[in-house]
Amino acid sequence: MSITTPISQENIVVGEVANGLPLTIPVYRLKGNGSGPSVYIQANMHGAEVQGNAVIFQLLEQLKQLNLKGDITLVPYANPIGCNQKSGEFTLGRFDPITGTNWNRMYHYNNNLVTQFAKDHSQYDDAALKNNFKQALIDEIDTKLNGPAYLLNTGKRIALNLQKLAHQADIVLDLHTGPISSKHLYCPTYATDSARYFNIEHVLLIPSDFDGAMDEASFCPWWHLSDALGAQGRDFNVQVEAFTVELGSQEKIDLTEALNDANSILSYLNHKNVLEDAPHKPSNITRYACHLDDYFAYYAPIGGMVEYVAPLGGHIKAGEPIAHVLRMERYLSEQPLQTLSLDCDAIAILHFASASVNQGTELYKFFTNVFEL
Amino acid sequence: MSITTPISQENIVVGEVANGLPLTIPVYRLKGNGSGPSVYIQANMHGAEVQGNAVIFQLLEQLKQLNLKGDITLVPYANPIGCNQKSGEFTLGRFDPITGTNWNRMYHYNNNLVTQFAKDHSQYDDAALKNNFKQALIDEIDTKLNGPAYLLNTGKRIALNLQKLAHQADIVLDLHTGPISSKHLYCPTYATDSARYFNIEHVLLIPSDFDGAMDEASFCPWWHLSDALGAQGRDFNVQVEAFTVELGSQEKIDLTEALNDANSILSYLNHKNVLEDAPHKPSNITRYACHLDDYFAYYAPIGGMVEYVAPLGGHIKAGEPIAHVLRMERYLSEQPLQTLSLDCDAIAILHFASASVNQGTELYKFFTNVFEL
Amino acid sequence: MSITTPISQENIVVGEVANGLPLTIPVYRLKGNGSGPSVYIQANMHGAEVQGNAVIFQLLEQLKQLNLKGDITLVPYANPIGCNQKSGEFTLGRFDPITGTNWNRMYHYNNNLVTQFAKDHSQYDDAALKNNFKQALIDEIDTKLNGPAYLLNTGKRIALNLQKLAHQADIVLDLHTGPISSKHLYCPTYATDSARYFNIEHVLLIPSDFDGAMDEASFCPWWHLSDALGAQGRDFNVQVEAFTVELGSQEKIDLTEALNDANSILSYLNHKNVLEDAPHKPSNITRYACHLDDYFAYYAPIGGMVEYVAPLGGHIKAGEPIAHVLRMERYLSEQPLQTLSLDCDAIAILHFASASVNQGTELYKFFTNVFEL
Amino acid sequence: MSITTPISQENIVVGEVANGLPLTIPVYRLKGNGSGPSVYIQANMHGAEVQGNAVIFQLLEQLKQLNLKGDITLVPYANPIGCNQKSGEFTLGRFDPITGTNWNRMYHYNNNLVTQFAKDHSQYDDAALKNNFKQALIDEIDTKLNGPAYLLNTGKRIALNLQKLAHQADIVLDLHTGPISSKHLYCPTYATDSARYFNIEHVLLIPSDFDGAMDEASFCPWWHLSDALGAQGRDFNVQVEAFTVELGSQEKIDLTEALNDANSILSYLNHKNVLEDAPHKPSNITRYACHLDDYFAYYAPIGGMVEYVAPLGGHIKAGEPIAHVLRMERYLSEQPLQTLSLDCDAIAILHFASASVNQGTELYKFFTNVFEL
Repeated sequence: MSITTPISQENIVVGEVANGLPLTIPVYRLKGNGSGPSVYIQANMHGAEVQGNAVIFQLLEQLKQLNLKGDITLVPYANPIGCNQKSGEFTLGRFDPITGTNWNRMYHYNNNLVTQFAKDHSQYDDAALKNNFKQALIDEIDTKLNGPAYLLNTGKRIALNLQKLAHQADIVLDLHTGPISSKHLYCPTYATDSARYFNIEHVLLIPSDFDGAMDEASFCPWWHLSDALGAQGRDFNVQVEAFTVELGSQEKIDLTEALNDANSILSYLNHKNVLEDAPHKPSNITRYACHLDDYFAYYAPIGGMVEYVAPLGGHIKAGEPIAHVLRMERYLSEQPLQTLSLDCDAIAILHFASASVNQGTELYKFFTNVFEL
Repeated sequence: MSITTPISQENIVVGEVANGLPLTIPVYRLKGNGSGPSVYIQANMHGAEVQGNAVIFQLLEQLKQLNLKGDITLVPYANPIGCNQKSGEFTLGRFDPITGTNWNRMYHYNNNLVTQFAKDHSQYDDAALKNNFKQALIDEIDTKLNGPAYLLNTGKRIALNLQKLAHQADIVLDLHTGPISSKHLYCPTYATDSARYFNIEHVLLIPSDFDGAMDEASFCPWWHLSDALGAQGRDFNVQVEAFTVELGSQEKIDLTEALNDANSILSYLNHKNVLEDAPHKPSNITRYACHLDDYFAYYAPIGGMVEYVAPLGGHIKAGEPIAHVLRMERYLSEQPLQTLSLDCDAIAILHFASASVNQGTELYKFFTNVFEL
Repeated sequence: MSITTPISQENIVVGEVANGLPLTIPVYRLKGNGSGPSVYIQANMHGAEVQGNAVIFQLLEQLKQLNLKGDITLVPYANPIGCNQKSGEFTLGRFDPITGTNWNRMYHYNNNLVTQFAKDHSQYDDAALKNNFKQALIDEIDTKLNGPAYLLNTGKRIALNLQKLAHQADIVLDLHTGPISSKHLYCPTYATDSARYFNIEHVLLIPSDFDGAMDEASFCPWWHLSDALGAQGRDFNVQVEAFTVELGSQEKIDLTEALNDANSILSYLNHKNVLEDAPHKPSNITRYACHLDDYFAYYAPIGGMVEYVAPLGGHIKAGEPIAHVLRMERYLSEQPLQTLSLDCDAIAILHFASASVNQGTELYKFFTNVFEL
Repeated sequence: MSITTPISQENIVVGEVANGLPLTIPVYRLKGNGSGPSVYIQANMHGAEVQGNAVIFQLLEQLKQLNLKGDITLVPYANPIGCNQKSGEFTLGRFDPITGTNWNRMYHYNNNLVTQFAKDHSQYDDAALKNNFKQALIDEIDTKLNGPAYLLNTGKRIALNLQKLAHQADIVLDLHTGPISSKHLYCPTYATDSARYFNIEHVLLIPSDFDGAMDEASFCPWWHLSDALGAQGRDFNVQVEAFTVELGSQEKIDLTEALNDANSILSYLNHKNVLEDAPHKPSNITRYACHLDDYFAYYAPIGGMVEYVAPLGGHIKAGEPIAHVLRMERYLSEQPLQTLSLDCDAIAILHFASASVNQGTELYKFFTNVFEL
């Protein structure tokens, strides 16, 4: 018997541009049999980070041939403004071009809701707690979306529409890329074990702070609820897992790598019991982790033209060259070619997308104090 | 005897661009006789907000004809990147074009320094407290500026260089403009009385929170020190006054208005005992104030082409039209001209610079719950 | 009997953006009784030049209450990319953000078609000549639009779609604005008499050269056909009139001025016999003209912050100040405030939109060698 | 005896920005013994095309160890505005951000000067013709640079300053890059033989038309003079060779490749007798050429996310895939992954820098009708 799960499409309206045309986002849905956790996956919230759309393509191509235990919702092109914001050849959609606000810092979180909920619902059993809290989160988003339109800015409206979809799921994956980058995973510390099921060598362990991003907006309420109930002496696991999956470099579509990344995600989903009789298993690779506090941004100490020489994903020793900076303005008056290095061992995760850097441009990000996962 | 105070100039280096050239800022200084408070005034941190340079011009033209009690430092073109960042005809320097970070949210504040200082220095007298705390603030900035260059991003380096100058003063004025705007003043609540000496009709009263801006970076340490010492039972007034002066609209130089605004600032400085035998006095105008929580951002509830009809600085009644939104896409299918209004009385302070707005663009900012100062 | 002419709407697709969504333009049509010339009016080809949409609104509001002799087609939001291209608060749609090409320089003109047509069709009578030539122009556009999609760039595809509509009309009006600008009219020299029916004080007389703009693309083929037939000794008037109407300043919607401009256009259309029993007549104003060669671009001779003092539309005498340039970098080392003036009498038509100018920025455009029309 | 040629540096001022600071360009000069042709090499006229600066670095490192017959002038960072124009992480300096004008289309050419010169100086011998014409070209640039400052726009002023340097040389190399690109050479047809001395596999043969670029501005006057004198029956070779050298991809510094390209240029200069006893010889590679008319721009026939699969520099057969276009908006309604191909054989030279493309974006440029050189 051939297995196929039907896919449905809905286009949701998340805003209007100046000539009055609606901003829409396509939402694809596959139904599970209800026995597994539900999943929400989105891509391309930042305009230049397009590879996630290809991963969603490869996921759909495989998912339609599988039976599912949990429902899966997939949203490519999550940000219709960011996707289409060009300046020169490149896509500028990392922040709202009007305000500068990072599109991935506009999700909503209300800590008071959590505190109050923990106080009011401690008598509920686990299942009721979960259902009621999930509904409370969705209701709060709905209240904002249905409130006066003049209270919501452009990015908030997009973010809330996506967050409403995400809150309905037990597993949330936000597909991003770095500028020029190796693959890496933002993983909340409580879900460290799950990181072993993705085929991603570098794992960044993040705490329970809320800084506006989709992954945080998805796990913070549940994590803080777990903490609040814990403070009351009740053991209530964090019910939702959420990750930001960094797929590599921006401004690039690679369908073969997208298939690899789809398989990596399916391996994780299989582990989480979303798929029925699926073969997907994690690769046998060494995974390196560091804590967010040890994720080190190295800013250009001088302005100039940069040759990046640290291999991405590579282990760099203190003192090894990470970049050469060419300063042709001063060819005669000083050494025109300067070599940069680090004071400590590190893994180079990503570097700036352009060779032209001002003093103070973020040149590299490094894992430091690395340990095997 | 003709009075003249000499002016000196220094150019400080605050960064380097990609072709290796230094980013410099001109700093003008006038010496007082030491009997009055010292003053720091800067302009044009945001690239399009140029009118402050004209105000500094008009200030210099007058100051050189006066005798001064306190030293005055004036810095036009505070942001050499923002000043020169064009995209189309307009200047884009509200945020770092690479990161989106608002240039006026990168100043430094370390609350721990204040807490520790209050603990360690409570035995000092007021004068020693002031001198030592001022030096501690400057030292902390110096430590950062003299630390490893790879720790500072571009905007932080500019901000710290300016902040080092500001921390040396007792009075700090940061000259800004809105997009299309009436004049208004950001005033910390403890300095409400001083707001009466500026010729500015609209005063926004702000609390002691730090959100990265120059005015906050200048008054927060002193305000929090005053609070911390107060908690110990000691009465130590906030020793520094700092204001953001919003001069009107961006992208505009008006030398006549600049003279008016220079006179407004001189009136305040005269009140603060910076000038010797100066005639400058505040105008007899009604001043309206509101608290920051009542400063209301009204976002475009629909996308379209906007005719702004609320007079800036004008008192608007609930229900009165503030804008018409034209949506020619839908001329036949719905009312193509929509009228927007407010639910409450307000003063329109500023509006968006363009007639083309997406749904969710910040259309207006209003004072609500207004009271006379 | 109440007069009403029905309006129909069609949305044409002129491209696709990166997330696959179609770029559409609304086209409004009113039918005449066939006894007068047909009219095509478009607005907002440059993204920031929005006032033409308001003029089309006011035209529609009046036209639906009139009977028409000729068909009228109105196209607001002619450029769906330009309309929605923001960078900071302002709209950047003067050129393709990827290539820099001015959106209003991408229309098509094939001089060979004209030469060949004049050779092949000289035996036709005037009416047949007109019909056949009009059809030949439309066919050529259709051939391009229906040819291989990989031959057309983004702007060309938008332009050709609009040009196809324009070629169907006898009268073409392209509604633009300057940056900060007085009203003025680009008028082909052969249509000078018609310029007297618009309520526009300043008229720029342009020759038959093709430089890529809509007005030129509309009149050049007919003008050159008239010339080519004239060279054969045949008198064949230019059959099409086309104007670029400059409505004032960009980034601004003013519904009252839009009504004035709609009346100005209706006065011209009434003169051309498009309207039935319409009352619209030109105002009794003095009209000033200059030839395109005398339209003088004045570039900033130095960099600085500019106070524009020449009144737009005003008659400037040689030597009178047109701008002050503030250079605070050099307050001590040279005269910080420089005054600019012209060597000849002129009318100031428009100036740059920003006060911040590099050396060589186009500061003003002036009519010189002005004469009354 | 150790050979060393001293290098001198001069910084020329080519403009002023809005805060009054000068725009300067570093000019490096090495003196020859006067027995060989003089050389002018510039880089980075387009802001993102930085690799030429590294090539100039590698050239200087070698040239200072050689004896020279001809003078050599090297100009990195030729465009101080373009170099420093960021929008997001990338450099936007392909066109003036204010006007959209391509920085490499603003050089000067006056055909009348050539015609008049050919008429007036036909009695001169070759050496006098060359000297006088060279001086006439320089004088014309000087006249413009020394004329009223308000006649020159920003880009023109930069271009003229560079062109003045270029006109003093017999050999002009303008170092550029494509977006994502293989190496290729723009070569005027009369200098085809010289193309064999560069280590560049792909040569684009261009005619004598002037379109504003540096190479054209350098060879057009001489080529047209040669033609004009030829029409008088006199044989006067084109005295100047000028090439645009496309070094590969933008936004990238690669010092190893820069050394290769420096050697390629030194091979050509050695052939032209600029160097004394230098070992540099061309590599033994097959060179492919096509004529400019056969340089084919392939625009995206649909909007979408593009995976580029044609190998740059590779020979593509008609019908082979050149790109896949992913359109996730339409996953269910049509084939979401479209394959593009060509109708004819070709060499893929460059492709667009981003994976996100609107319909009509220039996707690829191809050599067609290729022949071996």
